[in-house]
Amino acid sequence: MQILQLEKLILKALEEDIGCQDITTDNLIAPDVKGTGAFMAKSFGVIAGLEICRQVFICLDPQIEFTFLKHDGDQVESGDILAVVKGPYRVLLTGERTALNFLQRLSGIATRTRKMVDLIKHEKAIIVDTRKTTPGLRVLEKYAVVMGGARNHRFGLFDGAMIKDNHIKAVGSITKAVARLREKLPHTIKIEVETENLEQVKEALASGADIIMLDNMELEMMETAVKEIAGRALTEASGGITEKNLQKVAMCGVDFISIGALTHSVSSVDISFNLVQNN
Amino acid sequence: MQILQLEKLILKALEEDIGCQDITTDNLIAPDVKGTGAFMAKSFGVIAGLEICRQVFICLDPQIEFTFLKHDGDQVESGDILAVVKGPYRVLLTGERTALNFLQRLSGIATRTRKMVDLIKHEKAIIVDTRKTTPGLRVLEKYAVVMGGARNHRFGLFDGAMIKDNHIKAVGSITKAVARLREKLPHTIKIEVETENLEQVKEALASGADIIMLDNMELEMMETAVKEIAGRALTEASGGITEKNLQKVAMCGVDFISIGALTHSVSSVDISFNLVQNN
Amino acid sequence: MQILQLEKLILKALEEDIGCQDITTDNLIAPDVKGTGAFMAKSFGVIAGLEICRQVFICLDPQIEFTFLKHDGDQVESGDILAVVKGPYRVLLTGERTALNFLQRLSGIATRTRKMVDLIKHEKAIIVDTRKTTPGLRVLEKYAVVMGGARNHRFGLFDGAMIKDNHIKAVGSITKAVARLREKLPHTIKIEVETENLEQVKEALASGADIIMLDNMELEMMETAVKEIAGRALTEASGGITEKNLQKVAMCGVDFISIGALTHSVSSVDISFNLVQNN
Amino acid sequence: MQILQLEKLILKALEEDIGCQDITTDNLIAPDVKGTGAFMAKSFGVIAGLEICRQVFICLDPQIEFTFLKHDGDQVESGDILAVVKGPYRVLLTGERTALNFLQRLSGIATRTRKMVDLIKHEKAIIVDTRKTTPGLRVLEKYAVVMGGARNHRFGLFDGAMIKDNHIKAVGSITKAVARLREKLPHTIKIEVETENLEQVKEALASGADIIMLDNMELEMMETAVKEIAGRALTEASGGITEKNLQKVAMCGVDFISIGALTHSVSSVDISFNLVQNN
Amino acid sequence: MQILQLEKLILKALEEDIGCQDITTDNLIAPDVKGTGAFMAKSFGVIAGLEICRQVFICLDPQIEFTFLKHDGDQVESGDILAVVKGPYRVLLTGERTALNFLQRLSGIATRTRKMVDLIKHEKAIIVDTRKTTPGLRVLEKYAVVMGGARNHRFGLFDGAMIKDNHIKAVGSITKAVARLREKLPHTIKIEVETENLEQVKEALASGADIIMLDNMELEMMETAVKEIAGRALTEASGGITEKNLQKVAMCGVDFISIGALTHSVSSVDISFNLVQNN
Amino acid sequence: MQILQLEKLILKALEEDIGCQDITTDNLIAPDVKGTGAFMAKSFGVIAGLEICRQVFICLDPQIEFTFLKHDGDQVESGDILAVVKGPYRVLLTGERTALNFLQRLSGIATRTRKMVDLIKHEKAIIVDTRKTTPGLRVLEKYAVVMGGARNHRFGLFDGAMIKDNHIKAVGSITKAVARLREKLPHTIKIEVETENLEQVKEALASGADIIMLDNMELEMMETAVKEIAGRALTEASGGITEKNLQKVAMCGVDFISIGALTHSVSSVDISFNLVQNN
Repeated sequence: MQILQLEKLILKALEEDIGCQDITTDNLIAPDVKGTGAFMAKSFGVIAGLEICRQVFICLDPQIEFTFLKHDGDQVESGDILAVVKGPYRVLLTGERTALNFLQRLSGIATRTRKMVDLIKHEKAIIVDTRKTTPGLRVLEKYAVVMGGARNHRFGLFDGAMIKDNHIKAVGSITKAVARLREKLPHTIKIEVETENLEQVKEALASGADIIMLDNMELEMMETAVKEIAGRALTEASGGITEKNLQKVAMCGVDFISIGALTHSVSSVDISFNLVQNN
Repeated sequence: MQILQLEKLILKALEEDIGCQDITTDNLIAPDVKGTGAFMAKSFGVIAGLEICRQVFICLDPQIEFTFLKHDGDQVESGDILAVVKGPYRVLLTGERTALNFLQRLSGIATRTRKMVDLIKHEKAIIVDTRKTTPGLRVLEKYAVVMGGARNHRFGLFDGAMIKDNHIKAVGSITKAVARLREKLPHTIKIEVETENLEQVKEALASGADIIMLDNMELEMMETAVKEIAGRALTEASGGITEKNLQKVAMCGVDFISIGALTHSVSSVDISFNLVQNN
Repeated sequence: MQILQLEKLILKALEEDIGCQDITTDNLIAPDVKGTGAFMAKSFGVIAGLEICRQVFICLDPQIEFTFLKHDGDQVESGDILAVVKGPYRVLLTGERTALNFLQRLSGIATRTRKMVDLIKHEKAIIVDTRKTTPGLRVLEKYAVVMGGARNHRFGLFDGAMIKDNHIKAVGSITKAVARLREKLPHTIKIEVETENLEQVKEALASGADIIMLDNMELEMMETAVKEIAGRALTEASGGITEKNLQKVAMCGVDFISIGALTHSVSSVDISFNLVQNN
Repeated sequence: MQILQLEKLILKALEEDIGCQDITTDNLIAPDVKGTGAFMAKSFGVIAGLEICRQVFICLDPQIEFTFLKHDGDQVESGDILAVVKGPYRVLLTGERTALNFLQRLSGIATRTRKMVDLIKHEKAIIVDTRKTTPGLRVLEKYAVVMGGARNHRFGLFDGAMIKDNHIKAVGSITKAVARLREKLPHTIKIEVETENLEQVKEALASGADIIMLDNMELEMMETAVKEIAGRALTEASGGITEKNLQKVAMCGVDFISIGALTHSVSSVDISFNLVQNN
Repeated sequence: MQILQLEKLILKALEEDIGCQDITTDNLIAPDVKGTGAFMAKSFGVIAGLEICRQVFICLDPQIEFTFLKHDGDQVESGDILAVVKGPYRVLLTGERTALNFLQRLSGIATRTRKMVDLIKHEKAIIVDTRKTTPGLRVLEKYAVVMGGARNHRFGLFDGAMIKDNHIKAVGSITKAVARLREKLPHTIKIEVETENLEQVKEALASGADIIMLDNMELEMMETAVKEIAGRALTEASGGITEKNLQKVAMCGVDFISIGALTHSVSSVDISFNLVQNN
Repeated sequence: MQILQLEKLILKALEEDIGCQDITTDNLIAPDVKGTGAFMAKSFGVIAGLEICRQVFICLDPQIEFTFLKHDGDQVESGDILAVVKGPYRVLLTGERTALNFLQRLSGIATRTRKMVDLIKHEKAIIVDTRKTTPGLRVLEKYAVVMGGARNHRFGLFDGAMIKDNHIKAVGSITKAVARLREKLPHTIKIEVETENLEQVKEALASGADIIMLDNMELEMMETAVKEIAGRALTEASGGITEKNLQKVAMCGVDFISIGALTHSVSSVDISFNLVQNN
């Protein structure tokens, strides 16, 4: 994960929490007291965000020692130590909450993703995320999805074309919309069309769409659509897919299944940061 | 909600999603096409973030018309229209996802908060939030907690002193820690002490702590502690409090109950943005 | 051109030129003196950047009146008036150079692009730009290319995959590289492979590349490659293409021709800003 | 070249190109693969910007090794190696284009400048640049001019006073304008007056101008003006000066010749970055 | 002093002074010339800001050697050496003024504070600062106050509640204002009420205010107020307190005395930076 | 005063004071309550910063009404109303302190400057400021100096060359230093030399320095130096000049007198902001 703006993002989070000073710690702990902290899982989970935890502490003190015992993407059980941090006790106390806020949320995403991926591991369908992410954290949340074993959909409105219902109405037809984008967009960009019925599927296919989204379709219709398309475009199931219906959707033969709930409704993984003073 | 940095936060979220351009919309919709969009609840919830939605669209076009039909803090049912936006169709299409990402998450927080507040509405205990918020969004998430009917704990490490386990060990005793902070901190700042047993409670009380946190205590011990304190300090229950044990904790007689889950594990409220083109 | 960061870019340019003050103008011209300025072409050209000129003056004074007589993309002759600006004389004098620096450079790009586009207007090949742009101005320079009648290639390293010589060597083969990207990238992203000979072309085609770049090939080899590919992938000619060989390259039957010189070696169009004082 | 904001400028350029990720390289090249890259001139030129190339790679990885074989200001021939970079192969691949975009443009400016400087090396006249630079890059482009052997004019509107045509009209006369500036400006600032005929030259001289610009004058008039001024003010020729008329202008005896084309219409120098993988 | 934004603040100050270049030093001193500089007090004073001086030079060159001979909070006499800096002569010359501007102003604040603290060292009253600080430098000026031996009042409008005259009028009474804040604010925040007479003091006390400010009261009234309050709330004297009346105010028995003049009208301490060249 | 970065500077100051919220005002005053505030001088002074006060309130609410009764540069007496502000009562209460902090400090500078200017109003010498300004506020403090009736010296290290003691030692002689700068600097920049004795004065004059600073000279030596220079360079007295010796220095015949104390040791002017609620 090589992200140029990561440092800025972490600094913002630290500034939000610390403001001008950690008034408790700075007044109680001398700057030369050292300590050791250990991140420990308190429940089952898939880890994402350990590297960010390291950088949180480095932002506060570049000399900190951070040892990884687990890595992003690892599956852990309650009691597993994830990483150990050594440095000024002040820094450990002040950075703890910000580090955990990142780690618990991202691991929550990775964990939920892994569970869903595992549910359909015998199907060819690939789970992908959506743009339903927390404002400001998209790059991290999409990283957590990958750690969970799924794949990313387009990052934003700039790196993939998606013709939706409202675009179609505004332009007049799927055919016209695809043609216009094909004429205007870089040739490196794929065009995806959102369809709601078989007629639209046929038009999208005929128009040369690269990806056809089967949006909120009944399973039967979805299956028919996949057969109709027959590999001439990529297929993506979307809309209201949860742990309950995931397998059935996958069995319709679609190539991709996009799931907003991977990132928009996530329970944090319970992880603690246990601290001891060294001197 | 008068937040100086709000505009910057919203702009960041828009830049993250839009990058250099919404390549679909900008190539399919002419700049002079107008439209109307309506935010509609698709399930029960308490709303928070409508004002932010307004500002998301204003960032994209200062001329947008935004009409509130509901307000932050209102309880809504599926089918309720929350607000109506009129302006360039392009702007509505491009801003939709960012607006919803804010609104759904913040309303999720307000909704969960309201449910918990209602569970103990006949007790004197007041529910407060924690610092377990999404990095970068604390000010908004704490605002959503207030919309849900609970109250805020300290904002960060700078506006309230909280002496924890590790601070006590480092300084030697609760008594010393409180004394040192009292000597160094602005006299406008209250001092809270985290306690785990009755002995600590007594020491905290004797040391003159303003607030005594009863951390992860059994109900019985908590009740004894509250009686011991007898109004000479504020009391705050904390640690693993959920919908299940909330009422029992409240009945122990504490003044405040702090709940991290208000903000760290939230399901988004389902809200849609329905668009029609005007010309 | 709806660019969120445009204002920041323009502000940066103004700050660079003005620093703390235009010491000549602010000391010689009273703030209430009004004036009118006219942008006038002093040679043939295709215009790009007029909207930016408007925003330069608006950054200095939001009340400025800016009237477009020509629009971005228009072809103009020496003597044509492009736009008229009315407002404080100070603002016109202070903003002039920054506005012209944008307008002359972007129009230079649009003009050179138009000339190349016209050279092959009877061929099917489409001219596209590259990433050889001025650091910090890519979004504007790519906009100017579109105003000149050509199309954009990928915007950067994030919205299109391009497997180059060095990637192939590192991975072992084109086949492996394409397979690995197909497995890891969002399904919305196309994969382009740079090839230097017919063997590579065949491998790229077999590997399922979406776009095959024919890099620095002799015309004869290029023609053979296009025939070999036979529409099963998009083809893009690249490498040392100038006004001299452009037509011959186009006649090889490629779909796209990418030309770095559209943006990296450009003569500014000569445009003046003629000012008169109104009161 | 000790520029505080340089790092910010380079970071901006990298962010523009890389966005959230180099999707090709990060997915094909393991983080521990090392490589070596060499900047090589592919034509004659004067080099400017090597130090910036070093910083581009350092921004991506502070551990990179960068060895200079040539230095900014050196004249090179096709085939000369300019610098060698060693480090993670990923970093070399990702930073290549941004580094070259800086280096080729700045070297283009230095090369054109050197050619013009050489044309009048037997005259006393000194070539200087103008404010006709690329928005955002002025400090770098003016540095490249110095590397080419010419000198800088004022940096912007804040560090030198230049009374132009429109200022004169607004104030009433050159005499009044010079007097007013002399009264208001810091005494450390020189005052330059733009003149178009001998009458104006005389007035500027009488008014005590420090520098008299001879703007767009015929050679004969320019020569007369220089004689008239006779060293009592510095003289600067300006307006439409190119390789063709430069020598004749210089022979008029002016002290300085300012040339916008040094920076506004420049051909990039052809420089390649040749990469090999080390392990 | 662990301040996240300190680096940004120092960078801003350096950019303000240096702009694009120190044109004198960069053209006269070679980059490899080394030098040594010594900060020397030229009058009595209490030092604050040495750590900032170190960081000023580090911003310009991370390799600089900075040796502290005195520390923030130390009292010094004319002739005392405070710190010694070794590094590139250029860096010493360029950073000197910015370092001194910080050091002299902050030491001025510490010195004035120490004098006032000493005036009442036999009284229990504690001197605190106000929000009357230089825009942008509050965190540093409040730090200097602590170095001078006094204590900080609230940092800003966010970390302490202060009910003033105008708030009381708007709400209707002190009682209502305190009650409303108590209901809305985090329980970690203390409430201070500004009072101007004994009636208000009584109401504030009855309302449960945590701190009662005695604003601009005659000494006699202040004494009566303190007796009335009798330790049931903290007391703070405020308004027009200077070296002249400080002792008498302290003898009224108040807990705190807030003094705006600690930060708003300060004479810089005279400190020089003596430089020698090493090679 | 047309300063591009002014808005950023004011926003920073407001953020510093307000943080996430004015917790008192926002909880006590309804958003629709209106009020009127009046800035009133409470002592004699020269006003500077009223325009900034206007912008402070505009940053909080663009609809605010601000009426100027006095203007920057005006001399006022105790009781004079300077400006009246109408708008939301909240905004007036929240912005008050930040506005006053700017206004009182800048007026303090203008007032001290005016007093010194008046002391030598019958001499030709012109008072100028120095770089001894508060970090981050230079542009405003230099503006206040102009409002006080004096003039600005160079803004920073970038817009004027000043050869000091240490530069001379490093280069070898004044003659060499001036020659080198003359060869390297833009011809628009004047060169000033700091001299400490008559020998140096003579060398500076012979070397062609534009300005000769007479640094810390005895009055007699200064007078001799001025006669020696005899108008062939500008003369500037500097070093330890206060109200006490100012007139004598001026009578030595120097052109300029630079005084650091104009900005580095200033008493704020006492100005109040009187508020009434309108509805």
